[in-house]
Formats: sequence, structure tokens, C-alpha cells
Amino acid sequence: MNTRVKVSTNDLQNFIEMVLIKNGLSKEDAEITADVLVTSDKRGIESHGVARLKRYIDGLASGVIHTESTPEIIKETPVSIVADGKGGMGQSITYKIMKKCIKKAKTNFMCFASIRNSNHYGIAGYYTKMALKENLIGISMTNSAPLVVPTFGKSAALGTNPISVGVPSKTNKPFLLDMATSTVPRGKLEVYSRKDEKIPEFWATDENGIPATDPTMVLKNMLDRIGGGLLPLGGSGELNGGHKGFGLSVVVDIFSGILSSGTVGTDIYKKKGEPAEVCHFIGAINPDAFCGLDEISENMDKYINMLKNTETYDNKNKIYIAGEKEFLFEEKYANQLDIQKQVFDTINEIGSKSNLKLNKID
Amino acid sequence: MNTRVKVSTNDLQNFIEMVLIKNGLSKEDAEITADVLVTSDKRGIESHGVARLKRYIDGLASGVIHTESTPEIIKETPVSIVADGKGGMGQSITYKIMKKCIKKAKTNFMCFASIRNSNHYGIAGYYTKMALKENLIGISMTNSAPLVVPTFGKSAALGTNPISVGVPSKTNKPFLLDMATSTVPRGKLEVYSRKDEKIPEFWATDENGIPATDPTMVLKNMLDRIGGGLLPLGGSGELNGGHKGFGLSVVVDIFSGILSSGTVGTDIYKKKGEPAEVCHFIGAINPDAFCGLDEISENMDKYINMLKNTETYDNKNKIYIAGEKEFLFEEKYANQLDIQKQVFDTINEIGSKSNLKLNKID
Repeated sequence: MNTRVKVSTNDLQNFIEMVLIKNGLSKEDAEITADVLVTSDKRGIESHGVARLKRYIDGLASGVIHTESTPEIIKETPVSIVADGKGGMGQSITYKIMKKCIKKAKTNFMCFASIRNSNHYGIAGYYTKMALKENLIGISMTNSAPLVVPTFGKSAALGTNPISVGVPSKTNKPFLLDMATSTVPRGKLEVYSRKDEKIPEFWATDENGIPATDPTMVLKNMLDRIGGGLLPLGGSGELNGGHKGFGLSVVVDIFSGILSSGTVGTDIYKKKGEPAEVCHFIGAINPDAFCGLDEISENMDKYINMLKNTETYDNKNKIYIAGEKEFLFEEKYANQLDIQKQVFDTINEIGSKSNLKLNKID
Repeated sequence: MNTRVKVSTNDLQNFIEMVLIKNGLSKEDAEITADVLVTSDKRGIESHGVARLKRYIDGLASGVIHTESTPEIIKETPVSIVADGKGGMGQSITYKIMKKCIKKAKTNFMCFASIRNSNHYGIAGYYTKMALKENLIGISMTNSAPLVVPTFGKSAALGTNPISVGVPSKTNKPFLLDMATSTVPRGKLEVYSRKDEKIPEFWATDENGIPATDPTMVLKNMLDRIGGGLLPLGGSGELNGGHKGFGLSVVVDIFSGILSSGTVGTDIYKKKGEPAEVCHFIGAINPDAFCGLDEISENMDKYINMLKNTETYDNKNKIYIAGEKEFLFEEKYANQLDIQKQVFDTINEIGSKSNLKLNKID
């Protein structure tokens, strides 16, 4: 049974864009959002790609996400911005502020922005990649729905709070780390649940805070808000460093939601049907603040080569630099994408309400 | 058998300072270094405290560490510094540059420094704490001797590369994360080796890159440079997020050693008897770059209280905020410290060569 469908990458981009316009977004905001979603699929991160269209459309329809997506600048210095997303699309809000950060970093060496009252912004790495395209170092992080249990806790208080850092290199693909600060994202449990497989004890806890191996139970507990949830990177307790993943997650919350006087922890997505109040922290650093692009990108090349030439422990695997696999996917999927049949059907169903159709490639 | 000795914290500070002066450091550099070491012991991080005195003294004696510890400013912008430590004491070099970062952050909203050609700088958190004392947000990271095996690798290519972030709060202790990006530091293996206990499979590998449980074998392999080493946070492979710890470790190397055109990866401590070329990245962020100290420190208080009030999974543990345990130790040990008898004897032996003596408290 073929559960995947081939589509033209361009067609998919245009289709998503049109659907978003028909659902109230401006042409500019629709274009940005579609690009963030399709880039995610192109990079092989399906969990954050067009599969999420329904959630955004539902959010726009219910008013939880506002169609107007123009951030308000609350405060601005030569090297920093505090912005209020006013409940608009996370992708648009963040894209627009990142553009400002990039511009300021070019003249003022760096600029960081803390953004409050936004929504889910897709893959963190999209915004670091914006910096990379301009030969700048990029930073991106966001808080998110509380799904992660703090070390020694029994209920979720933190998001999977990803951190992304991007650094240009000369001939190699750039370094582009984009990682949840939990051991795995929720989507990974869904995959195991569908396959009816047990999960490792480092991924999640039951409602009592005890490491769990049944993904279906954990997902149900999370959905019904019974307790438990995902574990921070490093797993349960302190023995294998779970407190470090917890600490990193808190850093993301602070930079995103505290520096902007926004929302953190259990207050994100607090009430169903009300604004999610997601917060982000992004920034761009001009290599000229340090040893300059030429030296830094050449040093990066030598460093990446050193790491990649390290001997591997078997012949099956190699040393991957953060982002490397995703850049290879992006080349592979530049013109044509494989998407899940279920996702293809769902987005076509959404499109059909606006007389839009995404064709498959036979 | 009492294996610990009580000493006056002040006496210890003065003793270390005098020993360092007798071994060639200036009064200022000796004072800084002694404070970094004793602060580490006060914060309960004995692995990075006065127990390391011998290594520094040996380094100074052999010329691997230079007694002259005045960093050269290679480049400076309103918000950044590139400095060359010229092989001086890591503590002094970093302290002096952090002072400059703090000064610049007060007027220019933030300042970050990338420092090359330095030496082991003690606990990363010392420099973030310097920022906290000035009501600024602090950042500190450093690369270090290659002891950590990259994901899918079989030999060490990265240091335990710690990351520290500090954020002020109003009435609670500040948030002060200070974490190695490996699952555990080498010292943890030494503790298990002395107790002849097995280590969890997430900590280290044998010479073939396979997770190991015998700490003595791993330590011997590391010492003899046979192969294997510590595992990144998240353990072996990608299943439990080991690639994330690896990625974070690379970020530290880049910010410390690449942005400064310094030394990274396997080139740190490359040749015995030659300069270690350790690199650091530090910085201070003025809360006024974002929502200001009042709002941020009040928000931090509410946030920390929310996390600490999360229900725990048993009655033995509680939710600890990063740095909390260490701040409690620091209060407890303000006047009097317990140090290992072996450490007491070693530092007294070093002192005796300069007719210096540290008294114990009976």
C-alpha cells in the first residue's frame, strides 16, 4: 500500500499560500507561512510542515490566531527589539522581526529580539537559516505548549522549547542546530504509538512522574491533562543529566517569555479557545563583531572536516554535523516532495472549501 | 576514618592567593584565581576548586601557563571583543575581559567576547555570576580538552564544553545554569572508579565507541589516548538525543574557538608541555535591552515560584532551579569549608615549598 503521494514543491507552496489567503491572511503573510511550512517538509521535518495546516486554519477560523500579523515594536535599541505579536501568525511575526534583526546586525554588529503574544512559529531553524542566507550567525528559540515534566516533577510545566543556532561555513553546508530541549518531541511518541512499539525509558513519564514505556498511555494522559509528559533531554532525574535538559528548557522560556514580559511555562496555551501567547527569541550576529566572515567560515570548514573525518564506531553510520541531513533533504526535495497520503487528503479537504486543489504527480 | 578537614574559607582564599603569588602571579591575578577556585568549593563543585591547584602550579612551573596574564584586545566593537589570552591564567584573562563586557553592556546594552589562547578557566558559572552581581544577564562557555566522543564516533574530538547562563530574579536566588554538554564530567567517572561501581550506559564508551560500564577502563583509555571517552548529553547514538549534546558541544567550540580564530576540537591540549590554547566565550546582557530589570526580575520570581510549586513525583525530592543548590552551599560554606584530606595535604605540600601553611580548624 502506497501511503505517500508525490507533489510538485512549487505547487505545494502555491496551494498552501492560496489556502491561507482564502482563510484571511494577506498575500505577504501567506507567502511567508507557506514557505516556513514547505521548507520544513523539504528539510525532512514532516511533523512541523504542511501536516500542521489544519491547526493553523482552525486557529484562524476560531480567532485564536489573528489574521492580522503585524508585530508591534514595544522597545528598540541599536542591538535589541521587544515586540508584541498581537496574536498573529507566528511565522509572519517572527519573519518580519528577524528581517529587522538582520538589518540591524549588518550595521550594529548584532541584534536580538524577544517576542511575546505570538503563535506556533514552525521550525526554529527557519529563522536561523534566514540569517545564514545573509552570511550572519543566527539564533532562534521558542517556548511552546507545556508538555515536558521538570526534573523530579510529575506534571508538565515546560514546552519542548527548541534551540536553533546557525553558523556559516565556506564550502561545507552551514552548521544548523535545531533541537527540542526534550529528549524527543511529542510526534516521536505518536510514531511509536501507531507502530504499537514501546518507547525507551528516557522519553516520557506516566501520570505519577515515573518513566513510562507505553507511548499510547502517555499521549492519552497528555491529551486529557491527567499528568506526566515528555522528559527533558537527559531523561528522568539527575543521573543521566535530565536536569541539564530542564535547565536549557528554562533558558528558552526566559529569553522568549521573560525578557519580553510575555507568557511562560504552564500559562502557554492555558485556555482552549483563547490566544496561545507563545513567545520567541531570535537574533543575528554579524561575523564582523568577531574575526569576520572570511576567517570564521574558513575556520568552520576546517573544523567541520576535522569532525567528519573522525573515525566512526561502525561502517553503517557517519559523523553528521547538525543540519547536514536536512540540507541534503532540501536539495533532494527542491522540485518534488513525497508527502503522507493522509496529509495530502487533509490539506486538499481544507483547500476544497475554497475551491483549491493540489494535484499529485503520477 | 575522617577523610575531610575543616578550614576557614578566608584562610583558604589567602593561602591559595599567596601560593599563586609565590609561583609567579601578580597580586591581582592571584586574587582573581584564588577567588574562582574557592568559589567553586563554596558552591560544592569540588572537582573545579582548590583540588586543581596542583595542575595550575605545574602549568606555571613548566611554562605551559604563562604567569603574565594580561589579555590583548585583538578587535573591539561597541558590543563585542576578540581577545588573545597569550597563554596566561584562564581565570585572570576571563575575569578581566568579563569586566570589560559588563562595562560595555551597561552603556551599549550588551557585549560578548570570544577569547583565544587561554587556559582552563575554572567553573563557567563564575563569570555569569559576575554579571549577576551587576544585575545583568550573564553568558559563559569554554572549550576544553578533547574527552567527548561525537555521535557515531569512536574517539574523543570535543571537550566537555560547558555552557552557563545566569538571569537575575527579585527575591529568589538567580537562575544560574552551569552544565557540561557531556552527560557527566570526567570527575564523575573517577568517583565511580574509586568506589569500584559500574557506570550507566549513557556516560562513556570503550575504545570502540561502544557504551561502557567500567569507569576504570574508560579512564585508562582516555589517559593513554587509546580511544573512546565521555558521551554527549543524551548518550550514545541518536535514540535518546545524543546528537543534541554533540550539537551543543559544537556550538560552544564555535563561539569560543572559531569566532576568535582560536583553537577547537582535537587541537586543544594537543601536545603535552605546550600551551593548551583553550578558548572561551563570555558576555553580559543589560536587561534594559529588553523589558528592564524590574519587570524581568519580577517575572523571574513568578516563573521560578511556578516551577518550584510543581508537584514532585515523590516526597524525597523537590524541583530545583539551576544554581539553587550551589547558592545554598555558598551560604553554608561562607565562613568555613570542608575539604578532602587528600586535597588539604596536597595544597599544603605545594605551599610548604614557599613556606606557606594552611591551618585546619579542630
